[in-house]
Amino acid sequence: MIIIMEPGVTQIQINNVIEHIHSLGMKTVVNSGVVQTVIAAIGESSKYSTEQFEALDGVRKAERIQVPFKLVSRDSHHNDTVITIRNTIKLGSNNPPVIIAGPCSVENEETLLAIAKVAKDAGAKILRGGAFKPRTGPRTFEGLGKLGLEYLDIARKETGLAVVTEIMDPRDLELVCEFTDILQIGARNMQNFTLLNEIGKTNKPVLLKRGLAATIEEWLLAAERIMDKGNDQIILCERGIRTFDNKYTRNTADIAAIPLIRKLSHLPIIFDPSHATGKWNLINPLSKAAIVAGAQGLIIEIHPNPEKAISDGPQTLNFKNFQQLMKELQVLSSVLAPINTVSK
Amino acid sequence: MIIIMEPGVTQIQINNVIEHIHSLGMKTVVNSGVVQTVIAAIGESSKYSTEQFEALDGVRKAERIQVPFKLVSRDSHHNDTVITIRNTIKLGSNNPPVIIAGPCSVENEETLLAIAKVAKDAGAKILRGGAFKPRTGPRTFEGLGKLGLEYLDIARKETGLAVVTEIMDPRDLELVCEFTDILQIGARNMQNFTLLNEIGKTNKPVLLKRGLAATIEEWLLAAERIMDKGNDQIILCERGIRTFDNKYTRNTADIAAIPLIRKLSHLPIIFDPSHATGKWNLINPLSKAAIVAGAQGLIIEIHPNPEKAISDGPQTLNFKNFQQLMKELQVLSSVLAPINTVSK
Amino acid sequence: MIIIMEPGVTQIQINNVIEHIHSLGMKTVVNSGVVQTVIAAIGESSKYSTEQFEALDGVRKAERIQVPFKLVSRDSHHNDTVITIRNTIKLGSNNPPVIIAGPCSVENEETLLAIAKVAKDAGAKILRGGAFKPRTGPRTFEGLGKLGLEYLDIARKETGLAVVTEIMDPRDLELVCEFTDILQIGARNMQNFTLLNEIGKTNKPVLLKRGLAATIEEWLLAAERIMDKGNDQIILCERGIRTFDNKYTRNTADIAAIPLIRKLSHLPIIFDPSHATGKWNLINPLSKAAIVAGAQGLIIEIHPNPEKAISDGPQTLNFKNFQQLMKELQVLSSVLAPINTVSK
Amino acid sequence: MIIIMEPGVTQIQINNVIEHIHSLGMKTVVNSGVVQTVIAAIGESSKYSTEQFEALDGVRKAERIQVPFKLVSRDSHHNDTVITIRNTIKLGSNNPPVIIAGPCSVENEETLLAIAKVAKDAGAKILRGGAFKPRTGPRTFEGLGKLGLEYLDIARKETGLAVVTEIMDPRDLELVCEFTDILQIGARNMQNFTLLNEIGKTNKPVLLKRGLAATIEEWLLAAERIMDKGNDQIILCERGIRTFDNKYTRNTADIAAIPLIRKLSHLPIIFDPSHATGKWNLINPLSKAAIVAGAQGLIIEIHPNPEKAISDGPQTLNFKNFQQLMKELQVLSSVLAPINTVSK
Repeated sequence: MIIIMEPGVTQIQINNVIEHIHSLGMKTVVNSGVVQTVIAAIGESSKYSTEQFEALDGVRKAERIQVPFKLVSRDSHHNDTVITIRNTIKLGSNNPPVIIAGPCSVENEETLLAIAKVAKDAGAKILRGGAFKPRTGPRTFEGLGKLGLEYLDIARKETGLAVVTEIMDPRDLELVCEFTDILQIGARNMQNFTLLNEIGKTNKPVLLKRGLAATIEEWLLAAERIMDKGNDQIILCERGIRTFDNKYTRNTADIAAIPLIRKLSHLPIIFDPSHATGKWNLINPLSKAAIVAGAQGLIIEIHPNPEKAISDGPQTLNFKNFQQLMKELQVLSSVLAPINTVSK
Repeated sequence: MIIIMEPGVTQIQINNVIEHIHSLGMKTVVNSGVVQTVIAAIGESSKYSTEQFEALDGVRKAERIQVPFKLVSRDSHHNDTVITIRNTIKLGSNNPPVIIAGPCSVENEETLLAIAKVAKDAGAKILRGGAFKPRTGPRTFEGLGKLGLEYLDIARKETGLAVVTEIMDPRDLELVCEFTDILQIGARNMQNFTLLNEIGKTNKPVLLKRGLAATIEEWLLAAERIMDKGNDQIILCERGIRTFDNKYTRNTADIAAIPLIRKLSHLPIIFDPSHATGKWNLINPLSKAAIVAGAQGLIIEIHPNPEKAISDGPQTLNFKNFQQLMKELQVLSSVLAPINTVSK
Repeated sequence: MIIIMEPGVTQIQINNVIEHIHSLGMKTVVNSGVVQTVIAAIGESSKYSTEQFEALDGVRKAERIQVPFKLVSRDSHHNDTVITIRNTIKLGSNNPPVIIAGPCSVENEETLLAIAKVAKDAGAKILRGGAFKPRTGPRTFEGLGKLGLEYLDIARKETGLAVVTEIMDPRDLELVCEFTDILQIGARNMQNFTLLNEIGKTNKPVLLKRGLAATIEEWLLAAERIMDKGNDQIILCERGIRTFDNKYTRNTADIAAIPLIRKLSHLPIIFDPSHATGKWNLINPLSKAAIVAGAQGLIIEIHPNPEKAISDGPQTLNFKNFQQLMKELQVLSSVLAPINTVSK
Repeated sequence: MIIIMEPGVTQIQINNVIEHIHSLGMKTVVNSGVVQTVIAAIGESSKYSTEQFEALDGVRKAERIQVPFKLVSRDSHHNDTVITIRNTIKLGSNNPPVIIAGPCSVENEETLLAIAKVAKDAGAKILRGGAFKPRTGPRTFEGLGKLGLEYLDIARKETGLAVVTEIMDPRDLELVCEFTDILQIGARNMQNFTLLNEIGKTNKPVLLKRGLAATIEEWLLAAERIMDKGNDQIILCERGIRTFDNKYTRNTADIAAIPLIRKLSHLPIIFDPSHATGKWNLINPLSKAAIVAGAQGLIIEIHPNPEKAISDGPQTLNFKNFQQLMKELQVLSSVLAPINTVSK
């Protein structure tokens, strides 16, 4: 921790800061510049917030030198984490990208099964589908609940696909775990600490979406919380962030976050082109861009008839466009392995 | 609902949209411009999302004409809502601003009592204090939990102040309700729909903070959800939003949101200068600005020794500065009543 | 300057950084922590960008300790700067707030004169009016040009008001200086360095609006540039920033910037409620809030008939509402002097 | 144009709006819903701003149906524009991506020539280099000026590469045109209307960077202004936007803007990975992502020794990494043509 003092502070103020640092069991090194004094606190500073030092008299700013996320950091765990789902699917590191596809909401058994079959035939490994739907306003469709989970389970058994679904209420944990292979934490719940804590106590793989306005650091700290509770089966998912322009896209896809996360953390990262753009006709180019940038998977909304989908129609691919995308991803993959080898 | 078609759509596409609208029980009026066709859907469109129409073939954009929040809208309920707390405190409309003060976290009984007494003597009506603390990273102080609630209860009994505290877990609802007069929903939980639903089923007053990156509309829709479940005792709280610049302030205080909310909604609105700025030395001018702009209350972090506060020290007033602010607010109030009269 | 090294760097990398710093004529102090090494560069570091150090091998981050703006900083010039306009108007420090009012665009002589008279009678000291109008798209009204300046001059002579108008083209400098008392640099030109440099070489007072997405630091550095060229007659103007929500307001009024600028800089700061909100019915509360927060002036768009104004109608006050606001500001001022005295 | 009235307006207010529309030579169609009235203005509404209608009494909102950019819109000009530079380079449509490379600033003749040769040998077609440098603060290196242009000219003659350089001052137009093949308008000048107007009157190709916080629409309107003045040789350049998170990247690369612009406009679009990320080690993955997403070129900062570059060192590739990237782009291209064919 580096503590930068205001210009013109007194020796008493400086001494108070030094004493405070010592009282926390850390050592200090003091640099007195021409204009300002800087105090380095050396020791176990990660337990303390910067604000605790900024509250001291005469302090202009306290800066953390080390990243605040330790368990998820690549510094502490050099090799890529690979998540194994249903013993067969390997997500992470240099494994081929894992495609997750399915409807926004589970609507009925028949449609879900039709989607699952198309997804499987096209090469997807995991089925997505919402049984509990977060909705900005009340009085709209909030999902089929347990029935939706049961349909997902049927589709899982029929196709052999793994299943991922969102959980919003910690009280549903046992129920959702029974029917699903991966627990999804949605963007709006990325800082629902109650939910993170509870999921951290399970050993289910977790798909942790980035919050709408979450910094890279807050996102990794949400993963850190889950890992701190004991669960290290975490898949990060970039899904677009909120910026000043949402006229033509729903969010701004932060593609640079993908290679950045791969540098900062050992956890795998996937990309959600449906929410990141909000436009079905941007899903194809953004999916390919994400894979080329290093994404280890994609989660895509598909529906036989997006116009009739109960939710997220505009950001949903129909079967034909999904199959087309899957073919193009295949071609792209053929060339990425040699490129990646070259990159080393 | 206004549905704007792409340029160059076919009559078949137009007819499909019209049919779809009719199938939902609404009427249509069609305007064919030189370049584009616009279809107005007339009827109970508030049940349907704009995206449902945007998913239809040939549609460029669907726009809601009416605001999506009805119950909290001033259109539906013309008079200001006034929240009565402990039978004596009136918050809202033209009642004098209600000041809420207290520490970020409840630390121990003694400090809390000292704070409560100072708050009360200076004219505050409500004591704030966190027993369950949301924290971005794990391995930091997360509050005293039930013990914190008990200390708040003791302070309440000793001083007669009402108490507000944050609730994060729906499973704590009964416990927290027992010890508190107002339930606070924090910024990170503004779209924790599980929590909103549960609190909506109680009749406790709620302090609903605006999310870090929540639009005015999303915030009002969170209130709408609570009200839709049956609880209309909602106090909105502006606490700063996340923008591109956080070098000198923690957030950007959206002061314009205060008069805007008073125009859009009948619910009362208060302001949190501590979180909105993150700097104790901006609390005084921003508090006064908020009151002049129409805020019906303030929630301020105070501590006998902000340097030693476990959390939020840099944005916490010490007793002397708080007492000073309270005096200035008094002087300001004396002049606001005549101004407001003049304003009519 | 503080240079933070990556974890695990070699002594050679550290030595390279140290050598580089010495080669620039600065001294170094090195702190080797358990995990990371931090090097403090002591001396005239303000000439060098942080990026120059970040490009060195093994460096994680370079941080400036001192603020990069020197001339405009309160550290270097403790007393408030007061700008004197036409020998009579004093803007800055504890002088009564100076009100600037007028139309968005100068439309014709008659309307301008009518506006100027109302402005003057209500207590405004300066007339605003655009002769050269920045417009996002082409093929829209871009102002009357020189004719507009002449009308402003007539109004100035008739009423004795000072005049402020925007300059966009460095080639217009002589012309605009002839007809105006204050040169306005618009938000879109805050980083038009050519324009800043030229205006910096004059001795005309400058009204420097904050850019749409300019940080506090970039804004002060734009002022620094003007001052560095020799012109210290700078009035800063907060006019709202661009954020994620512009549904109900055009921009987000950053009221906290007002007291913050007064702490960071000796230059005066005023507020533009018209552009900051974009809504005429928010001008009144925001104007009062800004004054209470420490603004030393206001610049407000007024028009006899905002509905017929060529530009900015929705954010323009009619005469009646402007006169009302001026009365309320008067009442407010009566109470602010005693408050400010108390505040010391 | 759609004009949405407030709920509860009077027939007189509605009639006023209708009359106003008629007075502008447009026709009206009126829809009276249960709650609100909507008026469609049919005719040449693109000349009028929405705000002009929003200023009318009783109007809640005016919405433009047609896009405000006409000349640059794909609606008005269906085929891709291809820019031909020095008779040999074709940029746009399905031509192979054009790579632009070079230093941030022109530093001296020798280094520039070395860079130009490496760029050429690796397959770049255009040399970039700043002679006039925009700098946030004063007292930093602002480029070599005319001497820099002369060095660029020498490099151009020696290598046959075309040259692009930034112009900031309209008074430099003739000079810069003499030495360069493409005029660059930097992000900070995207709304420098004086500069846009002047460049619009030339027939030089223009590289128009997106502003730091410019919406897609504002960016296209800046291009529209240039085209409206007569110059249709415009290359758009996405270079990252400003968002709430800049801790690990300088800006947020808006990769979705690339395919979006290709849908909205006929103009070519390229990508600047150096400014978009600010980190040299993100340039490789983002460059490839941009190309896959449809970028028709890249502009990349390179330097023999980024650590010693006068500016932008941290976002500059060294020769080895640039050559590596060029090889990978080659491999990628081999597969993109078949994919794009499949996509049709």
